[in-house]
Amino acid sequence: MLTPLTQLIAQIEPPDSAWLGRARERLDSLTKPPGSLGRLEELAAAYVAIRQDPFPPLDKKRVVVFAADHGVVAEGVSAYPQEVTYQMVYNFLRGGAGINVLARHAAAQVEVVDIGVNHDFGPEPGLISRKVAYGSRNMAREPALTREQALEALLVGAERARAAVDDGVDALAAGDMGIGNTTPAAALAAAFSGRPVSAVTGRGTGIADTVWSHKVAVINRALLLHKPDPNDPLGTLAAVGGLEIAGIAGLILGAAAGRRPLLLDGFIATAGALVALRLAPAAAGYLIAAHRSVEPGHLTMLEVLGLKPLVNLQMRLGEGTGAALGLSLLQAAHRIYTEMATFAEAGVAEKSA
Amino acid sequence: MLTPLTQLIAQIEPPDSAWLGRARERLDSLTKPPGSLGRLEELAAAYVAIRQDPFPPLDKKRVVVFAADHGVVAEGVSAYPQEVTYQMVYNFLRGGAGINVLARHAAAQVEVVDIGVNHDFGPEPGLISRKVAYGSRNMAREPALTREQALEALLVGAERARAAVDDGVDALAAGDMGIGNTTPAAALAAAFSGRPVSAVTGRGTGIADTVWSHKVAVINRALLLHKPDPNDPLGTLAAVGGLEIAGIAGLILGAAAGRRPLLLDGFIATAGALVALRLAPAAAGYLIAAHRSVEPGHLTMLEVLGLKPLVNLQMRLGEGTGAALGLSLLQAAHRIYTEMATFAEAGVAEKSA
Repeated sequence: MLTPLTQLIAQIEPPDSAWLGRARERLDSLTKPPGSLGRLEELAAAYVAIRQDPFPPLDKKRVVVFAADHGVVAEGVSAYPQEVTYQMVYNFLRGGAGINVLARHAAAQVEVVDIGVNHDFGPEPGLISRKVAYGSRNMAREPALTREQALEALLVGAERARAAVDDGVDALAAGDMGIGNTTPAAALAAAFSGRPVSAVTGRGTGIADTVWSHKVAVINRALLLHKPDPNDPLGTLAAVGGLEIAGIAGLILGAAAGRRPLLLDGFIATAGALVALRLAPAAAGYLIAAHRSVEPGHLTMLEVLGLKPLVNLQMRLGEGTGAALGLSLLQAAHRIYTEMATFAEAGVAEKSA
Repeated sequence: MLTPLTQLIAQIEPPDSAWLGRARERLDSLTKPPGSLGRLEELAAAYVAIRQDPFPPLDKKRVVVFAADHGVVAEGVSAYPQEVTYQMVYNFLRGGAGINVLARHAAAQVEVVDIGVNHDFGPEPGLISRKVAYGSRNMAREPALTREQALEALLVGAERARAAVDDGVDALAAGDMGIGNTTPAAALAAAFSGRPVSAVTGRGTGIADTVWSHKVAVINRALLLHKPDPNDPLGTLAAVGGLEIAGIAGLILGAAAGRRPLLLDGFIATAGALVALRLAPAAAGYLIAAHRSVEPGHLTMLEVLGLKPLVNLQMRLGEGTGAALGLSLLQAAHRIYTEMATFAEAGVAEKSA
C-alpha cells in the first residue's frame, strides 16, 4: 500500500524539455536579437515547459506563508522574542507586513498558514489553521519534531499546493515566519551539504558576534546529538528542522505534482527545498530561485540544488519577500513571451550578419 | 551671458543627504529587522532624498526612448540593416516592442523621440519629432556630429525631461534605439575611461568574431583620427557619439535639474551618463543603475560612474528594457516605504538583543 507521501512523490515528473525548444522558437521570432532578454527568456521558456502549454496563462499567483515556532529559541539564538511570530501573523492578516506589500506589487495573493505557532489564534478570517504542534521542541536537547509531525506538516504543505491548483493558481511562492528559524535552516544546510556549521550559519534577523558563536555551537550540539542521515530526509527534517520548513517542502512537492512553478524565497524556503529534492529529485525543474539572501549559507544551498538566483538585492527578511519579486519577474517574462510582436507582425527586418 | 547648457547645469544640485537619515528612520520603524530589505530600502531612501519630500508620490513613470541612426554602419559593424531603426520606431508606436511590454509591466508610459532617424516618418501620432539630422556621420572618416548638433540633441533631451516634469512624471527612465549604436557607445567608454577599445567593445546585437575584430579596429581608427579630449565632453560626444546618446545625456541633466530619479538602462544609456556626469558631476545622485548589461564595457562605465546595478539578468536589448525593470523595483521600494505597518501600528515587539 502506498503512503500519502509515496503517492505524492510518484505524481512528480520532470518538465518535458521538448517544450523548451518550442518556447525558444517563439522567443526567437519576437522583435529583438535572439536571446537578448537573457534570463527573462529562460524564465518564459521554463514556464512553458512546466505548464506544458504553448501559451500558458499567468493570471493568478499566490504566496503561501507558513508560520511556526521553534523550541530552540530557549537557547537564546534569536534577536527577537518568540511572540513576534504570532504578532507577525496578525500583521500578515491585516496586510501590513513586507510580504503583503511585495505580493500586492506582484499582484499575488497571500495565504497565511498556522502550521505550528505557539499561540491560540481563535477564529481569524483568512488564517488557514493547520497547527501540527505549538512549535517544535528544542533541537539542542531532543529531536525538533517526531517523524509523524514532520510528515504531517509536509502533507499540510502539499495540501495547500493542491488547494492552490484547484483555485486556478498559475504560480506559487513559498514564504515563512518563525522566530529562530535560521537555526534549523542552518542545521539542515549543514546536514545536507556536509559543510561546516560555521560556514552556513548567519546572523538571521541581526545577532551580535557572541550570539552568532553561540548559535553555531547550539547547531553543532544538535547535529552531534541526533546525527541526522541526509539519505533519510524526513528523519533529518524531524531531528533538526521545523514545521514551517516541512510545510514549504510539502508545498514544493505539491507544486511539482500539480505542474506549477514554485518561486523559492531565501534561506528558510531553500532549506525546505533541500528536503523536498532529497525526497523527489524530479521536483527540481519546478523550482525558480528568486533571489540570493544575505545569509551566507543560502548560496551553499542553491549550489547543492543547482539553482541560480534571479536577483541579489541584499535582502534577508524572509516571509516570501524575495519570492514575490521573483513572481513579478516571472510575470514580466510571461508578458514578453505573449505580448511582444514578431518580426513578421511588425514588418521588421531580421538579422543579416 | 549664460548659454542654455550652462543654465541647465547651474540648476543641478546634488540630493540633500539629510533626507536619507529621515527616510532611514521611517524604514527602521517598519515591521522588519532594520535593513533587511537591503537595496529596496536604499532605493526608497534615495528616492526620498531626490524628491526632498518625506512621503513623495510615485504615480507617473515615463521611459523616454531616443531613436537615431549612425553613419558608422557603413563600416559593417552591425548584425542588422539600418532600416531596422525606423522599423522599430513604428513597432514602439504600435506597442509591440520589448520596451512597450516591460513599460506596461512597470505601469510606465513610453515616449518615443525621433532625434536623428534616417527616415521621414510624416505625422505619426505619439512620435515626438525632434530630428537634429538624418543620423550621424561615419566617425571612422569624420566627426560623427558637429559640436552644434551634439549640443542641439542634448538640449532636446533636457527639454523632454522638463516636459515630463511638467506632465507630473515622478520618475524617468532612458532608452535608445539605433542600429550600430554600440559602436559610438564603446568609443565613448574608451575615451572617458582610458581603457583599451578591445576591453569595452562587445557583440552588440550579436556579431561574429571577425566582425567584432573589425568593430574594434573601426573604433580605434576613429579615436586616432579625432583624439577626443575627455575633459571636453561635448567635443568627445560630437567626435565619436551619436544623437540618441546626446539626447539621453540631456535627459539625465534635465531629470537632475527637475529633481527626478533617472533609471539608467544598459550600454548606450550609460554612455550618455558618462557625458552627462562629465558636464555636471552633481547629477550623479539622480542616477539609478537599473541593470548590468551583457556588453563587457558596461561594467567599466558603471565603475567610472561609481554606480552599482540593481540586477544582472544577462540582458542586452537596450530600448530602456533594463531601466523599465528598474522602475518596477523602485515602485516596490516605494510601496515598502509607504505601505508597510510600523512596529507600533502592528503591535509587534521590537528587537531585544
